[in-house]
Amino acid sequence: MLTRRNFLLGLFIVGLIGWHGAWATPAQGADPLPSWNDGAAKQSIIDFVTKVTKEGGADYVKPEERVATFDNDGTLWIEMPMYNQFVFAIDEVKRQANQHPEWASKELFKSVLAGDMKAVAAMGEKGMVEIVAATHSGMTTVDFNKSVKDWLETAKHPRFKVLYTDLVYQPMLELLAYLRANGFKTFIVSGGGVEFMRAFTETSYGVPPERVIGSSGVTQYQMWDASPVLVKRPKVLFVDDGPGKPEGINHFIGRQPIFAFGNSDGDKEMLEWTAACQRLCFMGLVHHTDAVREYAYDRDSSVGKLDKALDEALGKGWTVVDMKNDWKTIFPAAKASP
Amino acid sequence: MLTRRNFLLGLFIVGLIGWHGAWATPAQGADPLPSWNDGAAKQSIIDFVTKVTKEGGADYVKPEERVATFDNDGTLWIEMPMYNQFVFAIDEVKRQANQHPEWASKELFKSVLAGDMKAVAAMGEKGMVEIVAATHSGMTTVDFNKSVKDWLETAKHPRFKVLYTDLVYQPMLELLAYLRANGFKTFIVSGGGVEFMRAFTETSYGVPPERVIGSSGVTQYQMWDASPVLVKRPKVLFVDDGPGKPEGINHFIGRQPIFAFGNSDGDKEMLEWTAACQRLCFMGLVHHTDAVREYAYDRDSSVGKLDKALDEALGKGWTVVDMKNDWKTIFPAAKASP
Repeated sequence: MLTRRNFLLGLFIVGLIGWHGAWATPAQGADPLPSWNDGAAKQSIIDFVTKVTKEGGADYVKPEERVATFDNDGTLWIEMPMYNQFVFAIDEVKRQANQHPEWASKELFKSVLAGDMKAVAAMGEKGMVEIVAATHSGMTTVDFNKSVKDWLETAKHPRFKVLYTDLVYQPMLELLAYLRANGFKTFIVSGGGVEFMRAFTETSYGVPPERVIGSSGVTQYQMWDASPVLVKRPKVLFVDDGPGKPEGINHFIGRQPIFAFGNSDGDKEMLEWTAACQRLCFMGLVHHTDAVREYAYDRDSSVGKLDKALDEALGKGWTVVDMKNDWKTIFPAAKASP
Repeated sequence: MLTRRNFLLGLFIVGLIGWHGAWATPAQGADPLPSWNDGAAKQSIIDFVTKVTKEGGADYVKPEERVATFDNDGTLWIEMPMYNQFVFAIDEVKRQANQHPEWASKELFKSVLAGDMKAVAAMGEKGMVEIVAATHSGMTTVDFNKSVKDWLETAKHPRFKVLYTDLVYQPMLELLAYLRANGFKTFIVSGGGVEFMRAFTETSYGVPPERVIGSSGVTQYQMWDASPVLVKRPKVLFVDDGPGKPEGINHFIGRQPIFAFGNSDGDKEMLEWTAACQRLCFMGLVHHTDAVREYAYDRDSSVGKLDKALDEALGKGWTVVDMKNDWKTIFPAAKASP
């Protein structure tokens, strides 16, 4: 019970310990985003969350409608020097090669097996799609999940020499947790393969499989030895990129986000769709500006190209995170040193 | 603090009030399924939930893996004398007719407009698909949602003369709530249209849009008057029926259910997929046996045909709910009298 006496006693104790900092209550004192430097980006996030969670306030949003969507590659984890899923696909070509003698006579697969990445790159997006389709089909969803998990537990990033799951962005982990602590449902909406991502999103981001939306292939229900399995087919069902992102959000979530974060032109339509929410909404972009601690790239990059979406964000006053200046740390627990 | 003295005092008070019944704690006394008659079906549900939620028990399942999937038509709400969504489509043909002068020259639509349901029925499934495609496309997702909501607020069931949302099954509402109170995530997995269902599942079942999986058409991101919209196209994206149910569960949830309920052969593969979970799982069927309070139909019905799945359920000892004997009441608050 809060009597006047207890209240004064409390004030006295607070005075003893020191009001600022040391005696931080979780509700008002603790910094929910400790890896973010103070600045406009951090402030815009905190202001938004404060407003939409203030009951009775003009911008209040009911918890069930607090949908937040995040791109994955380049927004939640590293995407350079090439998309991690493509590195996995390349490694899978090598691992699966003895089960696929037909690959030996195909120029594309021969180049992969010979480690001639220049020749692979010369095949462009078509080659990439073919490699992904070949290595991501013909097995059950259970076996595929296992092969991704095995890879994630062993494969190392060429520059940072650590596991790929060590190269998630610490400031974004804090942001995900901060939103969830404020009643948000956090979703991933990525051009990456949905089953590839689901192998690690729950452990790495606290995002369960049913909140992961991604590109997907057709799976087919079959009976193998009288047991039902889902077999991955080499046929695209849905491409969750560009306009596919709002389409995928509608298909999976059925609700317009009030918060969205991306890092490339592939996120433009998701951000525009969020901006059309007809109430207070938050649109954010991660701008990769830190060649020393991570990478610096934008308009001319073939991976994670950020050009039109950057112009739109700057023009409309969306939040643009300057990685170099806005993020105190990039990766968790300094596992990765550049 | 529970001292020996407090413990004995507690025992004394319990003794005074009477141990059995009158002093029911929510945890052990209250019946979570009051509209279910005592019997094998009800007991099988309670036994299952008790086992998978008992920490340290052999059958314990972590909350994040407690995925429960429910068919909708005939499992959570009425589906006779024809699927409610098809009644909606018929009504929409009438409502939209003046915007579609081309329908006047088409035999199928002429029959609908003339109220000649025999002629419509003679067109079979092909006719039904055509009517649904025509009335469920060409508008934005927002406008479609509004037209479903308007219809649900006014259209009455031909026999019960109440709103369709009054014809949800009270015992299943209790089951959904019971599962959620025990940490389950409840999903709908239905052959019905996903956007049709999302207009009422949150209000009627407490199932939010992102937990509704259904058949779907392609939606397309477009700019209308410089504002982004999602436009429904007359093209099927995904049919969530039969083998499509486990495929849809994988696509949307990415996890195998441990609990599934259906009522027709369209649910067979979902139940088989659940049964293959390699731990304690629950498979249930609603058998419509009550011609007086609802309807009685199974093997020969064109709507909600239950034949092969019934044999499989009986053969494998899955739970089969005998609506007439297992359910004390059918609809909530006796809104509907037959």
